[in-house]
Amino acid sequence: MKRVVVIGGGAAGMSASSRVRRLDETAEITVFEATDMVSHAPCGIPYYIEGLFDDVRLFMTYDPDFFRTKRRINVLTETRVTEVDLKSRVVRAEGRHGIVVAEYDYLIIATGASPKVLDTAKGDRVFYVHHPAEAKELREKLWSLNRIAIIGAGITGLETAEALAAKGKKVYLIHRGPYPLNKYLDEDMGKILAERVSRSVEFRPNESFERTESEGRVVLTDKGKYEVDGTIVAVGIKPNVELFEDYVKLGLTGAIETNHYMRTNLREVYAAGDVAESINLVTGRPDWQPFAPVANKMGFVAGSNIAGHEMRFPGVVGTMITKFENYFIAKTGLTEKEARAYGFRPFATTISSKTRARYYPGAKDIHVRLVMDEATGRILGGQIIGEEEVLGRIDAIAAMIQKGMTAEEAFFVEMGYLPAISRVWDPLIVAIRQLLKAE
Amino acid sequence: MKRVVVIGGGAAGMSASSRVRRLDETAEITVFEATDMVSHAPCGIPYYIEGLFDDVRLFMTYDPDFFRTKRRINVLTETRVTEVDLKSRVVRAEGRHGIVVAEYDYLIIATGASPKVLDTAKGDRVFYVHHPAEAKELREKLWSLNRIAIIGAGITGLETAEALAAKGKKVYLIHRGPYPLNKYLDEDMGKILAERVSRSVEFRPNESFERTESEGRVVLTDKGKYEVDGTIVAVGIKPNVELFEDYVKLGLTGAIETNHYMRTNLREVYAAGDVAESINLVTGRPDWQPFAPVANKMGFVAGSNIAGHEMRFPGVVGTMITKFENYFIAKTGLTEKEARAYGFRPFATTISSKTRARYYPGAKDIHVRLVMDEATGRILGGQIIGEEEVLGRIDAIAAMIQKGMTAEEAFFVEMGYLPAISRVWDPLIVAIRQLLKAE
Repeated sequence: MKRVVVIGGGAAGMSASSRVRRLDETAEITVFEATDMVSHAPCGIPYYIEGLFDDVRLFMTYDPDFFRTKRRINVLTETRVTEVDLKSRVVRAEGRHGIVVAEYDYLIIATGASPKVLDTAKGDRVFYVHHPAEAKELREKLWSLNRIAIIGAGITGLETAEALAAKGKKVYLIHRGPYPLNKYLDEDMGKILAERVSRSVEFRPNESFERTESEGRVVLTDKGKYEVDGTIVAVGIKPNVELFEDYVKLGLTGAIETNHYMRTNLREVYAAGDVAESINLVTGRPDWQPFAPVANKMGFVAGSNIAGHEMRFPGVVGTMITKFENYFIAKTGLTEKEARAYGFRPFATTISSKTRARYYPGAKDIHVRLVMDEATGRILGGQIIGEEEVLGRIDAIAAMIQKGMTAEEAFFVEMGYLPAISRVWDPLIVAIRQLLKAE
Repeated sequence: MKRVVVIGGGAAGMSASSRVRRLDETAEITVFEATDMVSHAPCGIPYYIEGLFDDVRLFMTYDPDFFRTKRRINVLTETRVTEVDLKSRVVRAEGRHGIVVAEYDYLIIATGASPKVLDTAKGDRVFYVHHPAEAKELREKLWSLNRIAIIGAGITGLETAEALAAKGKKVYLIHRGPYPLNKYLDEDMGKILAERVSRSVEFRPNESFERTESEGRVVLTDKGKYEVDGTIVAVGIKPNVELFEDYVKLGLTGAIETNHYMRTNLREVYAAGDVAESINLVTGRPDWQPFAPVANKMGFVAGSNIAGHEMRFPGVVGTMITKFENYFIAKTGLTEKEARAYGFRPFATTISSKTRARYYPGAKDIHVRLVMDEATGRILGGQIIGEEEVLGRIDAIAAMIQKGMTAEEAFFVEMGYLPAISRVWDPLIVAIRQLLKAE
């Protein structure tokens, strides 16, 4: 009988433990989760802040009792792991059950990630968007404020800005980069987004946060001073490796290094989800993609391997999708900037089109940017900003990149055409056709 | 100086001639088009009948003068080719310019397809949905009627049924097959669609049309008699090969056989679009996919090769998307039925999910069916019925099939996740995961 201990009951942890159970009837599976939620979805917090739903239990795909009774997984919530003895294979935890000690044959580290904390932002009016378990309190506080500064226009900052603007708040979105999501978008796409964002919030690009004063009621930057009611810090996240960093090998990204089986440098220790590093399929270099679908699949693979069903996690391409009001913004693979940094010789093109046939009412804008490797003709990355049918198109590009398709191969992918929702030359195909000209 | 003659000014013909012009400044290009429209979109007719737009010029992506002046293509509209002398390389046509004779070095046959005509349906109340040039007259007639029978629930029949139901007409949709679109959907998906269709029109499956009486005011079937004001026949289309069938080799599908360069059995004669046969990438067998995006690409390839820029059309997978009211219906690759007929050992699975995170308001239904080859694990086909984000997902499956992805490879395609428009386990990935269980 295998004893499997999982640290962290988020997407990766519950995916892994469910997979072990599915393949191994007899395994003894224990999950330690510091909060009272499992299989929770931090991605939902901005929508909760926006008031699109009120029941915080909806943050959980399944609740702890589901896993306990239906999947016979020993889920210990509100129980925080305090020590891991990797030599003796023992985990110690404290929580509402008092002190718990568990021995394991296999350990899965699925501790997730947390917001980067700024020492320069302090006080009871400084907030972080982090865990669904804290969402209720966070929302109550934010709803009581009128003017809010957000530091950082990455995914969390942007989604939170949208939510607060929708609630009628005055939002100052202060961003060090030249446009929102600059990690994910090249400049021309970034400008399209910046223009849209600026219509709803006070967007301050190229401005560096320095510190807060008055408990978060004043924000000082290299360009000025903002008097607000509160400040949200959203300057990125980092993997929760503290408990392990002295014993388990970390990768170049700072997350835990894993092989294709999601195993760490220790044979009986696996890592999955936001705490785990992966390999980028385009660059062949270590990469860290802390998104829930990746976490789920990493957990699925770790669980499979522990249960004796060999499975390989091939790596990531880096797919991201978010929205700002009526705009969906998506990216997969490399930006031109990244491609250049990784030593490719990229050729990139951006096209603007519409989402419906010219005769069909309600056509929306859509912008597609593609990045190709001039040396091989391979598609390296794609970016889309549009008002409908963005998700599936970015998925199609992800599939192309995953299989190393050239632009010419991609041109001949037989995409669907329906006047109500696409164009006979699909915007994606129009962009690919532009790449062919460069060949 | 190359003399290129194109017969047919639809998608394929105009794509081909534009491509020749782009690559060859000096070519002399003549297009013969029987109607007064070029680069026209028959796919738009149902939406025009529905009254979603009124300006019939919108059926054209570009009008003849655009091609004449901007692309220096000699477009002769309302000029029907009456004779092609493939030995002397001369085309004869008649029309508003009188008799025109053109010699060619290269000929592109792009005559498209037409509805199959039933001898058993006759009279001035019998209609076919065919060419945008006839759409105005057709719409005027149909709008004046109240009860309309449609024979055939393929794509055209179904889209026309939707349009007429939206205009408040009483529609009898009489179909020989067990459910609408039975060429494109397996039975469980077909039933979902049939249920939806039955809510808006009188859907009569498993019923064979026998003949009309009273000029189309009476429809007789093997099961009964319908008294209506008019009858639309939509029992399929056939390639327009009449002018050529004695000289140019036809393929197994009845369309003109072409090689990868879109060349026919005659070195200087190319065929593209709905008149041309292709190869199915999944089966390796001849296939005929008379859809506009395929036509455009075939034309692009034919034009490239004629202009001396070698390019290969790899083949088709058979992607189709249509809609019925709030349902989008899409298919790519093989159905289970087709897979079996082609000698595969298919395993198929259907899942039902939602289009948004459980906490995000407005989630819609989505059903995904996938077909896998048990012998190789390759994905052979996909079918989706859903209310949003169907198009891109079918495109993603098409890309997977195009590259011969196995289910396990497909499982790891990194799809986007945004609570507002998808689920953390994307419906597509859930379906793929089901396939993995069979492996």
